[in-house]
Amino acid sequence: MDRATTTPSAGRSTIVIASPLEPELVDRLRAVAPDRIDVVHEPDLIPRARYAADHVGDPPGLDAAGIDRWLGILRRADILFDLDWYDPAGLARNAPDLRWVQVTKSGIGETLRRLELDRTSITFTNAAGVHGVPIAEFVVLALLYLVKEVPDLLDAKARRSWEPRRVAQLTGSRVLLVGLGGLGQVIARTLADLGVDVWGVRRSDGPVPDGVARIVSLSEFRSALGDVDALVLACPYTDETHHLIGRDELAAMRPGTFLVNVARGAVVDEAALIEALERGHLGGAALDVVEREPLAADSRLWDLPNLLLSPHRASIVDAENALIVDIFADNLRRYLEGRPLRNVYDATRGY
Amino acid sequence: MDRATTTPSAGRSTIVIASPLEPELVDRLRAVAPDRIDVVHEPDLIPRARYAADHVGDPPGLDAAGIDRWLGILRRADILFDLDWYDPAGLARNAPDLRWVQVTKSGIGETLRRLELDRTSITFTNAAGVHGVPIAEFVVLALLYLVKEVPDLLDAKARRSWEPRRVAQLTGSRVLLVGLGGLGQVIARTLADLGVDVWGVRRSDGPVPDGVARIVSLSEFRSALGDVDALVLACPYTDETHHLIGRDELAAMRPGTFLVNVARGAVVDEAALIEALERGHLGGAALDVVEREPLAADSRLWDLPNLLLSPHRASIVDAENALIVDIFADNLRRYLEGRPLRNVYDATRGY
Repeated sequence: MDRATTTPSAGRSTIVIASPLEPELVDRLRAVAPDRIDVVHEPDLIPRARYAADHVGDPPGLDAAGIDRWLGILRRADILFDLDWYDPAGLARNAPDLRWVQVTKSGIGETLRRLELDRTSITFTNAAGVHGVPIAEFVVLALLYLVKEVPDLLDAKARRSWEPRRVAQLTGSRVLLVGLGGLGQVIARTLADLGVDVWGVRRSDGPVPDGVARIVSLSEFRSALGDVDALVLACPYTDETHHLIGRDELAAMRPGTFLVNVARGAVVDEAALIEALERGHLGGAALDVVEREPLAADSRLWDLPNLLLSPHRASIVDAENALIVDIFADNLRRYLEGRPLRNVYDATRGY
Repeated sequence: MDRATTTPSAGRSTIVIASPLEPELVDRLRAVAPDRIDVVHEPDLIPRARYAADHVGDPPGLDAAGIDRWLGILRRADILFDLDWYDPAGLARNAPDLRWVQVTKSGIGETLRRLELDRTSITFTNAAGVHGVPIAEFVVLALLYLVKEVPDLLDAKARRSWEPRRVAQLTGSRVLLVGLGGLGQVIARTLADLGVDVWGVRRSDGPVPDGVARIVSLSEFRSALGDVDALVLACPYTDETHHLIGRDELAAMRPGTFLVNVARGAVVDEAALIEALERGHLGGAALDVVEREPLAADSRLWDLPNLLLSPHRASIVDAENALIVDIFADNLRRYLEGRPLRNVYDATRGY
C-alpha cells in the first residue's frame, strides 16, 4: 500500500481534527513532532461522540459565527483527521492547502466516489488493519450463531420449552471467503484455527495467505458457491464487486448455506437476499452492513428471523481510536520524512 | 485413564445395544470381532431417537410381553451400550453377567451415584473426548454472544432501530477456566487461538496444557475470580465441585463478569446465580446445563434477558454417535485382548 509520497510544505504543518477524538490521543499526535506541526482541536466546533470511537457523532449545533470559525480553521489545514463533517464535498474548495486526509474507516472508496473527492489531488489514507480483529470476531460469532441455531434456542427459551436436539459443528465446515486483503487474512487465520476449511477468492495473485486451504479464481467462483457451507464477504466495494452476489449467485448456493457480509451492503443485491432468506433457500445470514445505512424502518430485513443484523458496529471497539491514531502517527512521521504513506486510497483500484 | 482391566468371559461375549444407534454403526461394532462377539440390537425394544445422536429418545411403549423380551435380552448381556433405559438402577440384578457398560455421556459420576451403580462391580466407560470440539465451539459462541451484546442487537432489531455503538473485544480479555481435563484442554486451546488470556484452575499437578497462560491453584481461586472478564466451568461434577460457585464466589467477581457453564448444573448454586443476574452484578451468562433437567417451566432462568440458555445440547452433533462408536470399538478390542480400557469411571475420584 506504500504507493504515494506526500511532500510536506516548508515550515510548520497544521493538522485539523475534524471528528471526535480523545484529548490524550490528540496529545499523542502533537508529540510526534512538536517543533514541526500544530494540531488544532476545537471540540466545540466538531461533532460530539455518542459512544467511544464514534466518528459521526451529534452535530455541534453551530450558529453562523461558529460556522465561520470552523471554515477559518479549515482554510489553514494542511492535514485533516477525518473528512470535514460540515461540508465534505466542498473539501478542496474550503481547505485550499489540504494535502492529506487520514480517514477513520477502512473502506472509503464508496464515500470518496460519492463526494467526487477521488477526483481531487488530495491524498486519502484509510484505517485498514484496525478493524481486522473485531470484524473477524463478528464473523466467528455470526457463523456459530447460525450453525448452532441460536434463533431456535431463543425461540424455545421464550416458550419456556427445553428442547435438546442435535446441531451442526463449525469445525470441518467449508467457508468461501471473498477478499483476502488485510481484513480477509485475519478472518482466514481465525476460521482456520477453528478447524474451518477456508477457500479464498481474490482478484490478484500472490502467495496464499495463512489459513487459506485453496484459492478460488474468479472464473471458478460461481461453481464454488455450490460447494460450501457458508459465504463470507470481506472484499472492498468497487464497481466490480457491486451486487457481486445477486439472484443467480444465491441460486447457485446449496439450500441451507449461510451468508455473512462484513464488506459493504451493496456487494449483495439486497432484494435478492431478502427473497432467498424469506423462501428459506439460505439457511440464514448475518449482516454488519446494508445497502442504505441507517436501514429504513420499512425494510423487510428487520422481520427475518434467520438474520443476525448488526448496525455496522462489528468494527467498533473501545480501543479503536488509539489504533487509528497509531496509523496516523506512523503516517505523520512518514509524511514529515518524505517517505510513502501507508493505507493510501488508490482511485484507479477504487480502494 | 487406563486404570481398569476387564477380562472377557471364555467363549463368545454378548453386547446389548440399549440406546438408539444407527444400524451401520451397529455393524461397525459387529465387525470388530465377528467370531468372538454377538451384538444384539432390537430397535423395537429400546427408545427411538428424536434427533441424530439422541441417547434418551421416546420410550418404545412396550406391553408386558415386550418388557419380558427386553429383560430376557438383558440377562444375556456381558457388555451394554449405554445404561438400561427401562430400569437403570436395577442393572446389576437384571443383567447378572454384565461386566462393562460403555456410556454415551462424558460426565457420568452424577448419574452413577444417583443410581448407586458406583457401588457395583460393573465397569463403566464414558464418552469423554467426543464432546470437546462442539462444547468448545459453544463456549466461543457464548463468550462472543455476551461480549458483542447480541441480546441488545436483537432488541434493537425487534424495535426496527439502527443503533451503532462500540462493543468490546474477546481478544485480549481474560478467562478463568475451571477444569483442565480433555474438555478443558480443547477449550483452552480454542480460546488461546482467539487471543484470550486463559487462566486454568485444576486440582492435580502435571504439565501446563497448551493455551493456558497461568495455572491458578485452588487456594488462589477465590482471588482470581476478581481478576477476570469471564468464568468458564468445564470440570467434572463431584462432591468437591458441588456448588463450587455460590453467593460468595459470585460476589468476588467484578461487576459485568460473564459466566459460562458447560460442566454440570449443580457446579453452580442456581439460586445465587439467578440473583446475581437479576441484580445485574454479572454481565451475563450462558448455560448448557442446569441443576434440574429438563428445566422447570416456572424457573426464573427463562426470563433472564442476559442469559443464553442451551438445553444440554452443546455437545450434540451429527457425528457424535460415530465418535462414540470409535471409542467403544477401541475399548472392545482392548477388552478382547485383556488390555486396560479407556475412559473408565473411577468411583474414588468420582469421575
